[in-house]
Amino acid sequence: MDIAFALYPGMTALDLVGPYDVLANQPEVTAHFVAASPDPVRCDAGLVLVPTATFDELTTADVLVVPGSGRWAEALEDGAVTAWLRRAHPTATWTTSVCTGSTLLARAGILTGRPATTHWAVRDELAALGALVRTDRVVVDGSVITAAGVSAGIDMALTLVGLVWGDRRAEFTQLVLEYDPRPPYRAGSPETAPAEVVAFARDVLRPR
Amino acid sequence: MDIAFALYPGMTALDLVGPYDVLANQPEVTAHFVAASPDPVRCDAGLVLVPTATFDELTTADVLVVPGSGRWAEALEDGAVTAWLRRAHPTATWTTSVCTGSTLLARAGILTGRPATTHWAVRDELAALGALVRTDRVVVDGSVITAAGVSAGIDMALTLVGLVWGDRRAEFTQLVLEYDPRPPYRAGSPETAPAEVVAFARDVLRPR
Repeated sequence: MDIAFALYPGMTALDLVGPYDVLANQPEVTAHFVAASPDPVRCDAGLVLVPTATFDELTTADVLVVPGSGRWAEALEDGAVTAWLRRAHPTATWTTSVCTGSTLLARAGILTGRPATTHWAVRDELAALGALVRTDRVVVDGSVITAAGVSAGIDMALTLVGLVWGDRRAEFTQLVLEYDPRPPYRAGSPETAPAEVVAFARDVLRPR
Repeated sequence: MDIAFALYPGMTALDLVGPYDVLANQPEVTAHFVAASPDPVRCDAGLVLVPTATFDELTTADVLVVPGSGRWAEALEDGAVTAWLRRAHPTATWTTSVCTGSTLLARAGILTGRPATTHWAVRDELAALGALVRTDRVVVDGSVITAAGVSAGIDMALTLVGLVWGDRRAEFTQLVLEYDPRPPYRAGSPETAPAEVVAFARDVLRPR
């Protein structure tokens, strides 16, 4: 099973690495890291990742994983990921996104009229791109799976492991990753975070 | 604030990228990715990361973050990370590990007689290296913070953000990462996973 992880400048590394460490350790999987060029890709907070193929070289895979970015509007404008999605999605078994990666799926026409989730701060923007926006952490709609913000990619990928290989495999994977989360604060969603924290975050995250 | 993330062959990417996306987005932070040589480093499931400095070049930082690996015994044997820790730890404000990264701290003498946690499958091995092993998800002991397996690095780093910059900052960070975990299975620890899954995982993860 070939899994293609999209890389692009300014992406959020955890959006990719959460699903990657859930999926790429499955013995049936070959992981590919696909970018516009062979050059290393700089993530938003400085980590640099090395592609294994370009969007022109790898146009088919069983699973596509598209991470998000605080600068998702720039990635939409650039068009490289959306052009690749238009080529690779029709033959993929699963097409997935994490966080604002959903906006790239939407621009590629994949979410039109579909239920989908995204980072809580860009729900309106995803709706404007044609998706039927849900507030769930993970939305499975046929062959398309979308996840909420950043860390939700782990939950999304475990869901996918269960769908592909069954519950026991997903449980094994969760145990190996010791995914028994104990957030030291109760602020992971706009519903639970203190109001002043939500207001500040909305302002910081507003597209400019 | 300079934060040095250690890179080494066979490391688990999520051990590093969880803390990285929590910490490196703080406006006061400069992130460094430090390895034995300037060459890109291949993680256990194929992702390749690019260092920004070598262990010889960067020997002081405010925070050290050491990820784990299924092949932690090879990293102990190699000695590059532990030699760097012996140089960098004495002047660091915080020294941290995720997963089996704890074994590297222990071999460097940092955990001798200290309470510490690690991946559930290597508790005995960490105790043999001199640590007072706890089963907590995150253990803070003075300037040393250790985390349980892989995904626990997110909880560890949020704890550190709270210690350094206060609760409001940590809550903001949790909200931006939408860290509102909803694991689709209940198998994140040996206490909650089905017995047959735990037995299988113990066998797979046993050091060889």
